Amino acid sequence: MDSDFPNWLKDQPLVQSLTVELVRPSLEDNAGDMDRLVRALSRPEAPPVTIHPSRMIEFCEKIRTSGFRCRTILGFTGMSCEILDILPVSSEDPVLGFAVDLGTSSLVFRLIDIGKRAIVREIAVRNPQIQYGEDILSRILFARSAQGRKILRTMLVDACSRAMRDCLDLTGLRAENVYALSCAGNTAMTHFFWGVDASNICREPYIPAANNFPVGRAVDLGFDLFPNALLYTFPNVGSYVGGDIVSGILAAGVHRSGSPRMLIDVGTNAEVVLGNAEWLIACAGAAGPALEGGVVARGMQAVAGAIDRVRIDRRTLQPEWRVIGGGKPAGICGSGLIDLIAEMFSAGIVTVQGKFDRSIRNPRLRSTPDGLAYVFALAGETPEGEELAISEIDLGVFLKSKAAMYTILSIIVGKVGLRFEDLEEISVAGTFGNRIDPEMAVRIGMIPDLPREIYRGIGNSSLLGAAMLLMDRTLLDEVNRVRNRITYIELNVDAALMSEFRGALFLPHTNRRLFPSVLCGRDYPAPDGNGK
Amino acid sequence: MDSDFPNWLKDQPLVQSLTVELVRPSLEDNAGDMDRLVRALSRPEAPPVTIHPSRMIEFCEKIRTSGFRCRTILGFTGMSCEILDILPVSSEDPVLGFAVDLGTSSLVFRLIDIGKRAIVREIAVRNPQIQYGEDILSRILFARSAQGRKILRTMLVDACSRAMRDCLDLTGLRAENVYALSCAGNTAMTHFFWGVDASNICREPYIPAANNFPVGRAVDLGFDLFPNALLYTFPNVGSYVGGDIVSGILAAGVHRSGSPRMLIDVGTNAEVVLGNAEWLIACAGAAGPALEGGVVARGMQAVAGAIDRVRIDRRTLQPEWRVIGGGKPAGICGSGLIDLIAEMFSAGIVTVQGKFDRSIRNPRLRSTPDGLAYVFALAGETPEGEELAISEIDLGVFLKSKAAMYTILSIIVGKVGLRFEDLEEISVAGTFGNRIDPEMAVRIGMIPDLPREIYRGIGNSSLLGAAMLLMDRTLLDEVNRVRNRITYIELNVDAALMSEFRGALFLPHTNRRLFPSVLCGRDYPAPDGNGK
Repeated sequence: MDSDFPNWLKDQPLVQSLTVELVRPSLEDNAGDMDRLVRALSRPEAPPVTIHPSRMIEFCEKIRTSGFRCRTILGFTGMSCEILDILPVSSEDPVLGFAVDLGTSSLVFRLIDIGKRAIVREIAVRNPQIQYGEDILSRILFARSAQGRKILRTMLVDACSRAMRDCLDLTGLRAENVYALSCAGNTAMTHFFWGVDASNICREPYIPAANNFPVGRAVDLGFDLFPNALLYTFPNVGSYVGGDIVSGILAAGVHRSGSPRMLIDVGTNAEVVLGNAEWLIACAGAAGPALEGGVVARGMQAVAGAIDRVRIDRRTLQPEWRVIGGGKPAGICGSGLIDLIAEMFSAGIVTVQGKFDRSIRNPRLRSTPDGLAYVFALAGETPEGEELAISEIDLGVFLKSKAAMYTILSIIVGKVGLRFEDLEEISVAGTFGNRIDPEMAVRIGMIPDLPREIYRGIGNSSLLGAAMLLMDRTLLDEVNRVRNRITYIELNVDAALMSEFRGALFLPHTNRRLFPSVLCGRDYPAPDGNGK
Repeated sequence: MDSDFPNWLKDQPLVQSLTVELVRPSLEDNAGDMDRLVRALSRPEAPPVTIHPSRMIEFCEKIRTSGFRCRTILGFTGMSCEILDILPVSSEDPVLGFAVDLGTSSLVFRLIDIGKRAIVREIAVRNPQIQYGEDILSRILFARSAQGRKILRTMLVDACSRAMRDCLDLTGLRAENVYALSCAGNTAMTHFFWGVDASNICREPYIPAANNFPVGRAVDLGFDLFPNALLYTFPNVGSYVGGDIVSGILAAGVHRSGSPRMLIDVGTNAEVVLGNAEWLIACAGAAGPALEGGVVARGMQAVAGAIDRVRIDRRTLQPEWRVIGGGKPAGICGSGLIDLIAEMFSAGIVTVQGKFDRSIRNPRLRSTPDGLAYVFALAGETPEGEELAISEIDLGVFLKSKAAMYTILSIIVGKVGLRFEDLEEISVAGTFGNRIDPEMAVRIGMIPDLPREIYRGIGNSSLLGAAMLLMDRTLLDEVNRVRNRITYIELNVDAALMSEFRGALFLPHTNRRLFPSVLCGRDYPAPDGNGK
């Protein structure tokens, strides 16, 4: 699994099991059965213990049949500790929860054994809403009608149900023992999930229907799977900064740091957060698709069959690569692409301008229907017998993405009067956050040239933050504090952007002083071109 | 209507209408639509504003369609102010609530216009559960099975639905505008209402399934009538002191008084509360049926057709009576019965021992199949042509009831070291609380011989308390404080009871010094028998 829980979490899980032996009824103590249980579970320092009205009959019965000894499952609703279930005292059923990342492209589910603080399993599926638009904007348009919203919502909830059921089946665990769903997504996805109108997200003044969502029951959102489960939704900051970012901040610990830290989340969008325990700023920009492998002709997500590591021989220009899950490569993912371009640059195949060096004569560099291209996997090496190549068009698209990323980072740091050197840690999240090699990303000028150890891959930070909430109910308040502390910076209206961006379109940058280690790097070809 | 709301209620209704104009969305203020509404409705001193998850879609839509100006209905759930409805700003719909008295024999519904602090209408129906037992014990036995509980519950909820729908139809008001149901009943009725097992109420150590019930939604209890309504249930103190008594205490204001006060609730049981702002004691005893008119052969409840006032000519022994609603008498209710017996006693028809004076020769006193009886309505005077008479058996039963009542009052006052003279006020509640003539009740020794003005008829106190809760949400806390302050005194296990009881079986009592005004009363026959 991607990541363990940070050690600063409090030991107050959102849902917990509490076994109590009640004082037996007597003439001296006329508390009712249920009142007796509530009394036994109440703690002066904890929120009041409540029961959902629909469970009264069942629970009252269970207290008697259990002989006044029961194992209760208590869930935090934000205002009270609700009795979610009463089990026999002998029950050893686990207390389970799902952390859910509602991504535009993928839905990821992490099944957590809350009692054991352990990740049981993780499962990811394609977001079926893609059939109504790869990009979120098409879906928002589709969901302008109540009918459209209903379709998208049902589709989403059904896909989530199926995936979580599959995950449970694979582990032999039961849906009845799932007591909490903790969900984080971007603003539009959260709207689709709740079925509320998302159309104002992309219409000036860009005001969502809701940033905060109530703690509900899974049934309220149409899940018929988890009769007992509470459902938490991470709040959005606004149309461009969603609950996934809030969750990511929690995961990266940016909000607790004394010194400034940065969180870079490269998903379908690039989202960047900068801040510390006192302030947080966030911005988002369209940097992602190329980085995620979505634009290059043979690009793909970081799943089995994707090339995720590339090295190129300086002399022969032959590539070597690693394939996720082993076997033949079906395509290349974001981290593979970063490696590929960094290595092409280091080997002199690609110039500072991001063009192929046309003086090179090598069978790997040849004309294709898309123009000149570097073939990084031959037809015979792929499962379908089609070669994998990167064209100058692909290169151009990629450079725009990496330039956008660098520009965003540069602007956001400048906005608050800091320099990159002031950053204590940079967490890189996203589907390929863990796979990215900072060395390579620096070499192409995608991220600033800082000591490599300040970069930390944290994987799916949205999912991690959601999972953390399951383990520590005090984060529910923390989430709101973090949310309220975030200032969103609109980059699209910023004039500084374009000049920064133009310089960043080069490899690594027009301003070489920004990348001192790249110029001196072991692999970087000296001007005399020993790698050619 | 029986009673107005006391003037000490705070002006903080359980449900209130609040019209707000929201700050319009702008680039400067990225609060979501719903967050904008919540912000506008929030008050630092009030509980947090919440939305039920199932209403998110509808409410988000309404905020936009209303053009950011809406009339909201806010209901207090005990922990939060929940948005129960969003109406057009032009809406003049009333904010309605029902107070419900869940009585063993009758279900009474008072429709309140909460916004206007006005009682709209009241309606009472027979409790249909009577078919499973007149007395609550038979019903408890019937409800031992889950099946039985379901039958009783469905029957009750259906009868309530029908009655409230009828009440709304009669007034031309709509169920959608009913936002709260405030229900009070005895412990068993509350259990039947919630569908929880009542069988331990009558089994040592007499511990109910629950004394406190959550604030729910009407739908949680099976009402399909009030989509928006919150449902409040008065908590029970224990098996023998139910929410109806707690509600009654509120209505009588016993809990706020500096000096001791008493509340006598004569329903199917006689329930008595004694206390002040610092302490409250309660006891219950089987005194009711006869007093309520349920035991005497032609006894009936205080409804149209019942004799509720009787005077007897000292010379001719001819009765004069008043019939509720006018017309011919179909029977006699509790207050009529008290009058009748007091007058028979005053006229010398009945002796101090509670027997007919067999020396009397009068056509009204004659042999019947039930033995010697006094005919208070001739066959020709009744709608069905059957004479109404009271037999010595009836008299005996009645005397036991009145003796039980006096004994209860006497014991409870003695328990706390007080005398009757220390009482500041005695509220008489119950179906005939308002109709009872203290003068007559004192004359037969049913209630202590105190200045008549300390007696106050407050009608259905359970219903009044329930209605008060609709008008003042701070009572929700008050109710719990009152509930926790009540000490229940078990009379059945008290040895003092029997000796007190024996003396009270006489008219007015063996100890005449307890009833000085009766001995000196204008109507009371002198020993020389001027009324004979």
